[in-house]
Amino acid sequence: MTTHQTERELAKTAQLALLLEVASTPKPGNVDRQREYEDLRFEHFLAGAVGALDGLEIAANGGPVGEAFERAIAGMSNQSGGNTQFGAILLLSPLVVAASQDELTPATADTVVAATTVDDAVHFYRGFDHVDVAVDEPPADMTALDVRRGGAAEPTIRDQALTLQDIMDRSADRDGIAAEWCDGFPRTFRTAEEIMAGDGAVTDRAATAFLDELAEELDTFVVTQHDEETALDVREKADEARSGAMDVSALGDELVDRNINPGTTADIIAGALFVALQRGMEV
Amino acid sequence: MTTHQTERELAKTAQLALLLEVASTPKPGNVDRQREYEDLRFEHFLAGAVGALDGLEIAANGGPVGEAFERAIAGMSNQSGGNTQFGAILLLSPLVVAASQDELTPATADTVVAATTVDDAVHFYRGFDHVDVAVDEPPADMTALDVRRGGAAEPTIRDQALTLQDIMDRSADRDGIAAEWCDGFPRTFRTAEEIMAGDGAVTDRAATAFLDELAEELDTFVVTQHDEETALDVREKADEARSGAMDVSALGDELVDRNINPGTTADIIAGALFVALQRGMEV
Repeated sequence: MTTHQTERELAKTAQLALLLEVASTPKPGNVDRQREYEDLRFEHFLAGAVGALDGLEIAANGGPVGEAFERAIAGMSNQSGGNTQFGAILLLSPLVVAASQDELTPATADTVVAATTVDDAVHFYRGFDHVDVAVDEPPADMTALDVRRGGAAEPTIRDQALTLQDIMDRSADRDGIAAEWCDGFPRTFRTAEEIMAGDGAVTDRAATAFLDELAEELDTFVVTQHDEETALDVREKADEARSGAMDVSALGDELVDRNINPGTTADIIAGALFVALQRGMEV
Repeated sequence: MTTHQTERELAKTAQLALLLEVASTPKPGNVDRQREYEDLRFEHFLAGAVGALDGLEIAANGGPVGEAFERAIAGMSNQSGGNTQFGAILLLSPLVVAASQDELTPATADTVVAATTVDDAVHFYRGFDHVDVAVDEPPADMTALDVRRGGAAEPTIRDQALTLQDIMDRSADRDGIAAEWCDGFPRTFRTAEEIMAGDGAVTDRAATAFLDELAEELDTFVVTQHDEETALDVREKADEARSGAMDVSALGDELVDRNINPGTTADIIAGALFVALQRGMEV
């Protein structure tokens, strides 16, 4: 893709991806520029993206990925809405590190994941000290590694010599972002291609990609907040909305009424926007 | 005002002010998160705010104000929508420099303006090389200093030893941002007080302040793009919208139909948001 735009620095590209994600509308069930909640508003996401930049700059300088993530979460949390972009930043952190080292591909992203250390895992846990994140009860054998323990889990992590990749492996079957980490970020790269192939406003293309993802994959944040049955229902209705059998804004209204936020799907869009921008997509 | 939020770095505070301004809706006649144009979209303003950061960081490190401004405009222009935040950045630049040196007040902002140099003036002119800005024909005795000459005006500026304050003085009667520069930024500080005094979402308070300003002051960008009669008409209708005699969204529709963009009023809001954030307003 030809471009007349100057190359944007990596950290700013990631910041712009966060901003474009929340601006993309409609994204049924999530905050976007047409829909917000009284206590979780569009402006909280703007402040979250501004605050995340310092951490993204650590990633853009090559990492370490755990420190970059924790710093970005600390900065993101400097607003009164609570958790705005935790999952998106978790997805972006290794992608930004990968892009700082080489061409951004599933293989180079895998290399970053494989190189994560025990220190990265500790910083990941500390990320949970900065903001409340909705998570499931851990499996019985993972209680000592419950992410809600935050930095207090450090002795266990160090005793077991767990890297951040190890931590992600243990969550990949329950968490869509961890699954991306462990498998070369397939949804992220696929969605980036879809967004790049489109025409018109970037935020329109990202909204279309959001609905496609919602219609094709179970949102694991919905499973966490509700249950698998709810996530299956959302996927089915998103497919109806995509085909025109259901009105997209009616789907949005229903998800808001039922307090269903397909947040993982939004995180994937943020990651995909970063990949697309990094590959030359113009705004 | 008490705050539980960490103090945001100055440059990021200014970046957040740019983002909150464009997110504030409704702002009749301007791009906001509910209204955009096919060739000037919300996403262009997001990218503009991301790109402006490097220049804002120069200002946050104490200047020079002209260099900070030019760098921010160059970064802002790295998107395909054209001029998004030229006036807002011109307003913010001295305010950020002032805040980097001392408490941010009309007096400290005046000090920054009074200290501007010929080099600052040259950088200001170079700002116009980066992006097309709608401006009026200059008075006959100012042809050599037509801002549309951009950096080519440098010999004239140096021959006449004009500082950036001198340049602003010559435009203050025709340009609302230059008028702010020359008079202690009265509208900016007054509007900051109004926004801080409000309750609820920051972007709602900023939209209210926008309508108040539009109802009270002539928008000089409207005068430039159209004429004084048009600006008077906009002011009158904004006053009707404020009082409820006219529907705000009908005013927005009318301004869009007539291609009227009260851009200077939006710039004032961006400056006011920066002052309010700097004085502890939480998001």
